[in-house]
Amino acid sequence: MAVYTEVSDEELVEFMTAYDLGEVVAVKGIAEGIENSNFLLTMSSGAYILTLYEKRVDPRDLPFFVGLLDHLAAGGVACPLPVRARDGEALRTLCGRPAAIVTFLPGLWPRRVTPDHCAGVGRALAQMHLAGADFPGGRENALSVDAWRPLLKSAGSGVDSVQVGLGGKLNRDLDAIEAAWPEDLPRGIIHADLFPDNVFFRGTELTGLIDFYFACRDFLVYDLAICLNAWCFEADYSFNVTKARRLVMEYARTRPLGADEVQALPLLARGAAMRFLVTRLYDWLNTPPGALVTPKDPLEYVAKLRFHEQVKSAAEYGLDVD
Amino acid sequence: MAVYTEVSDEELVEFMTAYDLGEVVAVKGIAEGIENSNFLLTMSSGAYILTLYEKRVDPRDLPFFVGLLDHLAAGGVACPLPVRARDGEALRTLCGRPAAIVTFLPGLWPRRVTPDHCAGVGRALAQMHLAGADFPGGRENALSVDAWRPLLKSAGSGVDSVQVGLGGKLNRDLDAIEAAWPEDLPRGIIHADLFPDNVFFRGTELTGLIDFYFACRDFLVYDLAICLNAWCFEADYSFNVTKARRLVMEYARTRPLGADEVQALPLLARGAAMRFLVTRLYDWLNTPPGALVTPKDPLEYVAKLRFHEQVKSAAEYGLDVD
Repeated sequence: MAVYTEVSDEELVEFMTAYDLGEVVAVKGIAEGIENSNFLLTMSSGAYILTLYEKRVDPRDLPFFVGLLDHLAAGGVACPLPVRARDGEALRTLCGRPAAIVTFLPGLWPRRVTPDHCAGVGRALAQMHLAGADFPGGRENALSVDAWRPLLKSAGSGVDSVQVGLGGKLNRDLDAIEAAWPEDLPRGIIHADLFPDNVFFRGTELTGLIDFYFACRDFLVYDLAICLNAWCFEADYSFNVTKARRLVMEYARTRPLGADEVQALPLLARGAAMRFLVTRLYDWLNTPPGALVTPKDPLEYVAKLRFHEQVKSAAEYGLDVD
Repeated sequence: MAVYTEVSDEELVEFMTAYDLGEVVAVKGIAEGIENSNFLLTMSSGAYILTLYEKRVDPRDLPFFVGLLDHLAAGGVACPLPVRARDGEALRTLCGRPAAIVTFLPGLWPRRVTPDHCAGVGRALAQMHLAGADFPGGRENALSVDAWRPLLKSAGSGVDSVQVGLGGKLNRDLDAIEAAWPEDLPRGIIHADLFPDNVFFRGTELTGLIDFYFACRDFLVYDLAICLNAWCFEADYSFNVTKARRLVMEYARTRPLGADEVQALPLLARGAAMRFLVTRLYDWLNTPPGALVTPKDPLEYVAKLRFHEQVKSAAEYGLDVD
């Protein structure tokens, strides 16, 4: 929950004169999203989302994100479409920050995930991977396997304050993950953060994917491994294989998985658990008291990591393996 | 800034079946308002505000607020209109909390107040007082003069940590205010919290008043005294008499002030400064670190109190005094 930058009514009205969207009717800061300041902007032509990019987003990446959304939307992916000003530019400046307007997507994100939601996500993720195949933009994954050790190191001895002995154990887990990490799997554009709060539904029908600010190039099936972590565990951290089966089977029906991808899935799921674990540990140990954002408990991902460690084959995720 | 209660998509969809507003299209938590959880709700019939009343609002007061908004809207005041469910009820329960839906008002609240805004507020405040004259509902002002001493006491010795010697000085100020507080002035429904973030404009045209959760019965001119504090000081706490003159003259043009009200205005302005000072001191000294809401600096109201103390007559607020 966060709006970091307050936009004055005058600045906003002036900013919007560059667009062909009519008059400003209303604007409300949205209590969602922790990386940027987001506003629901009501113009006389309809509803839009205005985003001011705060310091956690590298401004050099913004053309990649805008180009990607344009490309995916043209390829039929239900995602926000960047709105260009009259001069053709989608990226502008407001309150000294890079700013962009995108179309408003209908739908609600599911607080209680059902197997139907998981099927929708599997299908949409595969469609996104297919639509991204001919996108020319490049952005490496800054939070891939090479980044986890430095993040764990920077968390320091504080890791053992989260759970006794956790630091040593995670270093050994990471040794194993790094040693086994695949060199070569089908690569392309991945979302890299497709959690339930980034997917909208009306009933069981998926209406849109949002928040592409971690999107990058990496193994496509790693994105599926992230979704296994994000969508298929219950509140008590138990694994729901019914949800997982709907997710992976619907993915594979839309974009068939190669044997190498299937074989790598358990290791990639461990890696995905490690990725969210190390960033959560970092945030947990480095968020000052009084911050606007409450850090999330890292122990959730310790439990998920332990689960994936004992998985022997992708069949345990419900995938039909030949 | 706050959304305290998270509403699940399923609970919301179920809740909305009681209304004739069509289908739920989207919902966004709004990062405004510190007393309640507010959501911008997009239905297929249009936009609405959904409020969940958190613990700082007494549920027994809710029928008063709903009845007041109905009454004021019928009297031509631009305020949110409570939306009734099919069974005729405007007050329902969601996530274990009292909940209500009101119409969405267009407009932006002014971050930089101009004299034109002040004129609009003066006129709208007077219109609200006139429209409220025949409202039968009663609710005493829980934050009037009698409440300030207990609040100051509960802040305790911490007051001197805000400014050396402040506690003793405020007790003496309060002695003087209590001794001089009028017994008898025209009474009626007051808003009691008409700060800039509760007033919407499109350009210089006032489009609505919101947030009536402090509304109560008290001296009408005390509401004007609150607005003098809320609208007529600059960021450096200096008093802007041009703004004040537009505010009070436009008020008086719509609802003429009696000689007793004019004479009492400087004292009521001191009282209004004291009222916001003691609640800010309380919040400042009692907000735990890590709270979602950052308390506001009480010294702003110390400066305003000092200003009003040296005012000899309402003429110094720009009012034409006979």
